[in-house]
Amino acid sequence: MTEPHDDLDAYALELDQAHIFHSWSAQAPAHAAAVSIKSGLGTRVWDYAGNEYLDFSSQHVNVNLGHQHPALLEAIRVQSQLLATISPPTANITRGEAAKRLAAIAPEGFNRVFFTNGGSDANENAMRMARLYTGRDKILSAYRSYHGNTGSSIVATGDPRRIPNEFARGHVHFFGPYLYRSEFWATTPEQESERALQHLRRVIEAEGAQTIAAVLLEPVPGTPGIMLPPPGYLAGVRELCDEQGILLIFDEVMCGFGRTGEWFAFDAFDARPDLVTFAKGVNSGYVPIGGVIIDDPIAAHFNDRVFPGGLTYSGHPLAAATVVASLDTIASEGVLEHVRDISENHLGPALHALAERHPSIGEVRGRGVFWALELVTDRATREPVPAATMGRIRAGLVERGLLPFVSENRIHVLPPCIVTPAEIAEAMEIYDAVLTLELG
Amino acid sequence: MTEPHDDLDAYALELDQAHIFHSWSAQAPAHAAAVSIKSGLGTRVWDYAGNEYLDFSSQHVNVNLGHQHPALLEAIRVQSQLLATISPPTANITRGEAAKRLAAIAPEGFNRVFFTNGGSDANENAMRMARLYTGRDKILSAYRSYHGNTGSSIVATGDPRRIPNEFARGHVHFFGPYLYRSEFWATTPEQESERALQHLRRVIEAEGAQTIAAVLLEPVPGTPGIMLPPPGYLAGVRELCDEQGILLIFDEVMCGFGRTGEWFAFDAFDARPDLVTFAKGVNSGYVPIGGVIIDDPIAAHFNDRVFPGGLTYSGHPLAAATVVASLDTIASEGVLEHVRDISENHLGPALHALAERHPSIGEVRGRGVFWALELVTDRATREPVPAATMGRIRAGLVERGLLPFVSENRIHVLPPCIVTPAEIAEAMEIYDAVLTLELG
Repeated sequence: MTEPHDDLDAYALELDQAHIFHSWSAQAPAHAAAVSIKSGLGTRVWDYAGNEYLDFSSQHVNVNLGHQHPALLEAIRVQSQLLATISPPTANITRGEAAKRLAAIAPEGFNRVFFTNGGSDANENAMRMARLYTGRDKILSAYRSYHGNTGSSIVATGDPRRIPNEFARGHVHFFGPYLYRSEFWATTPEQESERALQHLRRVIEAEGAQTIAAVLLEPVPGTPGIMLPPPGYLAGVRELCDEQGILLIFDEVMCGFGRTGEWFAFDAFDARPDLVTFAKGVNSGYVPIGGVIIDDPIAAHFNDRVFPGGLTYSGHPLAAATVVASLDTIASEGVLEHVRDISENHLGPALHALAERHPSIGEVRGRGVFWALELVTDRATREPVPAATMGRIRAGLVERGLLPFVSENRIHVLPPCIVTPAEIAEAMEIYDAVLTLELG
Repeated sequence: MTEPHDDLDAYALELDQAHIFHSWSAQAPAHAAAVSIKSGLGTRVWDYAGNEYLDFSSQHVNVNLGHQHPALLEAIRVQSQLLATISPPTANITRGEAAKRLAAIAPEGFNRVFFTNGGSDANENAMRMARLYTGRDKILSAYRSYHGNTGSSIVATGDPRRIPNEFARGHVHFFGPYLYRSEFWATTPEQESERALQHLRRVIEAEGAQTIAAVLLEPVPGTPGIMLPPPGYLAGVRELCDEQGILLIFDEVMCGFGRTGEWFAFDAFDARPDLVTFAKGVNSGYVPIGGVIIDDPIAAHFNDRVFPGGLTYSGHPLAAATVVASLDTIASEGVLEHVRDISENHLGPALHALAERHPSIGEVRGRGVFWALELVTDRATREPVPAATMGRIRAGLVERGLLPFVSENRIHVLPPCIVTPAEIAEAMEIYDAVLTLELG
């Protein structure tokens, strides 16, 4: 093995191949990491050889405040000097302040927060609460969804990663709205919304409403393609749930905390959930944390009943300190307003302009700093660009200094919320060059 | 609500009651936290009013190096200045160094590490690996066990917290050895071991060995009562697994990293697992992290097959930095040797002396800084001390300045590995006073 100080970049890759077992990957050297990252600042990161990359993935869509934000680092410094960790049964002000701030940005009547280590166990615990509150068994979720990697969350997940992992029971899937590839033979957003609701109503009827504890839904599904809900869809789901005594869980793990230019993505769509799950952008992932924000009646259900869930790091002070700093920074630095300006005046227009130059971009959709480009071989048939080409596009973007988020036939454009117009212009040149090279 | 600067202790408790939804608890004020913790150092923590507590719980048995260890804080400082977080697909030296060190302390032939956020998702992913590697379905685990809070981990868990959470399938439970309350009518350790193995063999036969992917086992079950395996038990389980092509997963989440005076609890018992899960003591929980250490043949199985599991914070650099610092500190400060000395010459003898003075202590068992006292109303019948009395004992210990770990009718004695003889003497006086008061 290379000596650490000879060639740090080679050492990083060798260590990785020798000792790291990777997420969602085959593990042989041929499939291994090609990029090593040493440091970051804002929208940029650097490898050990000093090469710079523009981060238009926000990693796994988590560094909403960018890399190495000074306010978050200061929170880590201060809390780490005081108390890094303490177990859940004791009260801690940092933990309490984090929960108080989450309650303050949630809708009226959400006052309690159950903290977890990430998004997956946030969804696990939200499903647990819904089942115990309703006394019902089934969880409905969308085929085009991702809800996490653990026992029930991976089976609530609709995408094919669920299939080798089906060891949980009580999960039923339905199709959500996705006009560009409609499951309902719809041709307008209004029709897509109406038909998607009719489909969901039929699934509920056919499963038996009295067996369904909750509908679990990303207000804007992220990994499956950033599909903004069509007019009336989320309100319609809420109405269906109310009719049938079904709880509505919004998974804001990826779409929350500024990603869409709102605190929560659902804020733009006028539908109130019963439980909100979060992680990622809540503290940009500087210290792992996630959780569930709980509507009062559900919290009260457990006033004198033991809630049968918990974890050692629930409300971890070091993580909670970064939540406080992150939420305070989003407010004090006007991050939501910045994202809306970036979306309307810079990123949105730039992506539409890119699509005008590239017939291979079949659709541009998104909001905030949460956009997808559908790459197709033919705009009429909407045939997806094949995987091999997408692989070359990914490699080409990295080679030109942009860390992309590529999923199936799509490029997701996901810079940190603090991205500047100049960085967007820089990224557009790279996307443009690579699309020209690979798709003409 | 009290103003923050009036009375911080009251403010901590009020914030907690207003906004925190607690693990494994009822949530009404009557059940709420009674102690708030602001800061810590070594074996001691302080509340916001300045009251001092001796931490003989190590929180949730995680602060193996005590509170606010300078080496871990320095690692947080250095890594946070460089790069707090980066997503799993890119290589990172800090992550690689953490994995390399875990491979180095694991048995020969364990080279790859899959990092998670904690112990629960570590067990989820170990079960996933075992199922995919063997092509078999069932996981066998003990009734007296705790393996985590998420979908499959909570159902692998044997203790009653499993019961309201049975939404995973493919789990079968068996009884492990526990001579003090034998399930096998055994009267000697040898007989308990032999009969527990015979019982496990019969469960495997009756379930069908060809359906069983793995046996998941805490080498020393922690939460259910710190039961040291009797002679030959773990080796016998290994043998049974080998006969039948079943994998053996050792859950070292609570018992690893110095807790028993060894790197891994199984090191003392001459049985080699196929997968090792870890969390807690690996970095004293200063930043949430866990994972799976993987035997080479299992890692190789995924060389060209995609492993269908993963998470945003897998191999989180800030967490990995504390793993490196923690493992280096355990080695450089002779922590394992210290724990053995403490166990043999201080804590073990002190607990046995306590039992001589208190007939209510039915059994003292343990190793390292991992001990349990069985409190009984009658040594002959071994009738457990009732819950109400245990509640008063817990409150009495806290009142006298000791943070205890109380489970059912047991006091678990779990100081950090760096506990001193003087701190042990101090704790013994408190245990002695409270036992005298409550049990005579």
